Amino acid sequence: MSAPGTIHGVGLGPGAVDLMSVRADRLLRNARHVAFFRKAGRAGQARGIVEGLLHPEAVEFPMEYPVTTEIPLSDPRYNEILSEFYETCAAHLRALSAQGEDVVVLCEGDPFFYGSFMHLHSRLTGNTPVQVVPATTGMSAAWTATGQPVTWGDDVLTVLMGTLPEGDLTRRMKDTDALVVMKIGRNMPKIRRALESAGLLARAWLVQYAAMARETVQPLAEADCENAPYFSIVIVHGQGRRP
Amino acid sequence: MSAPGTIHGVGLGPGAVDLMSVRADRLLRNARHVAFFRKAGRAGQARGIVEGLLHPEAVEFPMEYPVTTEIPLSDPRYNEILSEFYETCAAHLRALSAQGEDVVVLCEGDPFFYGSFMHLHSRLTGNTPVQVVPATTGMSAAWTATGQPVTWGDDVLTVLMGTLPEGDLTRRMKDTDALVVMKIGRNMPKIRRALESAGLLARAWLVQYAAMARETVQPLAEADCENAPYFSIVIVHGQGRRP
Repeated sequence: MSAPGTIHGVGLGPGAVDLMSVRADRLLRNARHVAFFRKAGRAGQARGIVEGLLHPEAVEFPMEYPVTTEIPLSDPRYNEILSEFYETCAAHLRALSAQGEDVVVLCEGDPFFYGSFMHLHSRLTGNTPVQVVPATTGMSAAWTATGQPVTWGDDVLTVLMGTLPEGDLTRRMKDTDALVVMKIGRNMPKIRRALESAGLLARAWLVQYAAMARETVQPLAEADCENAPYFSIVIVHGQGRRP
Repeated sequence: MSAPGTIHGVGLGPGAVDLMSVRADRLLRNARHVAFFRKAGRAGQARGIVEGLLHPEAVEFPMEYPVTTEIPLSDPRYNEILSEFYETCAAHLRALSAQGEDVVVLCEGDPFFYGSFMHLHSRLTGNTPVQVVPATTGMSAAWTATGQPVTWGDDVLTVLMGTLPEGDLTRRMKDTDALVVMKIGRNMPKIRRALESAGLLARAWLVQYAAMARETVQPLAEADCENAPYFSIVIVHGQGRRP
C-alpha cells in the first residue's frame, strides 16, 4: 500500500499570476490533481488565475458551491447545505490521498485568512496529510495599489468584514489607526455610512480587483456605492510615527 | 539623457526563499543595483533571504542603520538621526534613478505593512519613479505555522504592536475575535500580562522565525517570555462562523 498523498492548500495571492509564490508556482505546475471552488456555471476565480500554468495531464476537480441565494443566512438549512457540500469535497480529497495522490487545492489570497479552504482543512486535518502555502493577501495588493503604506510605527490595524452590523462597524472604525474592510458588495452603502459616522470617509479608498488587469483605485467618497463588486476592499491608511 | 530608472520596493515575504513571489524573484535575479537595510556589523536579514540569487554583477548598497540604542525614543535627536539617515539613503537611490538605473530595494515581509521601505518611499514619491511589489507578510507565515486558520466568517482581526502601552494592549485584546501582535522582543512580558488580563493567554500562540529553518511554534503560556526575538509573532485565532 502506498503512503497517503498530501492535500496542499496553495495560496495564489491576490490575482496577478506573477504575485504567486515560487513555491505555489512549482507545486501547481507539477500537480496531477487540482481542485478549486467555483460558483455554479462560472469558470472559477482561482482557476482563472492559473490558466495556462497547469500540467496538460492534470485532473481537475471543480467544487461547485450549492446555490443558497434563496435561503437566508439565519436559516439552519443554510449551514447544513454548506456543511454537506464541504464534507463531500473533503471526502473526495481524502479518497485521492488514500490512493497515494497529492492534490493542489487552489486558494485565492491566503488560505488561512477568511478562505474557503479552511472548511476543507478542518475536515481533513487529523486524518489526512495537509500542507498550507501562505500567500500575499488581497488586502496587501489593495494597499499597495493605493500607493501609500497602510501602517507606520505603532499603528493599530483593524480588519472588518462588511457583513457586520452598522453599529459594530462604526464603533470599531472610530477606534483604529488603519482600517481594512472586506466582503463589500451589497454591504457598501452600510459601510459608507459607518465610515462617515466614524469621520473616516474623506480618508477612505476603494480598491476594486486589486492586482488584476481591471484594477481601479478611487477615493470612496467619489465611488458608486450601489454596485461595488464583492472583491472590493476599503483601505484607510494609518498616520503613525514616521521619522 | 536617459529616462529615469525605477526604484522597486520588493517584498521578499516572511523569509523562506520560495515564498517570494515570481515577480520578486525575476526582479532581483535581473537587478544590477540592490539596496537593503541592515544593522551595523550584521549581514542583514533581507540580504540573507536572497543569498545565492543575485546577479554576479549586481552592485550592492547596504543601508546601515545608525546606532541609536543609547538615545531614548522620546529624544528629538532620535527622530533627527533616523530622518537624516533615510534622507541620505533616498538621495543615493534618487541619484541612481537620475542616471537611468533601476534599483531593487530588498524588503522583509510586505513593504507597505510596517516596513522600513516606507521611509524611503515617502522621500522618493513625487520625484522618482517607484514601484512596490506586495508580498506574503510575516503574520501570514506565523498563522500558517500554527496549522489553524486565523479568521473565519465575520471575525474581526486586530493587529497590535507590542510597543503600545499595556493598558491599550489589554483593552484592544479584549475587544477582538482574532489577534496578531508584532514587535515583540523586550515587550514580551508586558504582552503576556495584557493577554492574561484579556483572558486570551490560554489561546495565544508564539511563533518565532516563521517560515525560516529555525521556526518554532508553541503555546505562549509555555514560552520563555524573557528572551523572545523581535521577529516573534503572537497569534490568537478567531472562532467565527464555520459551516
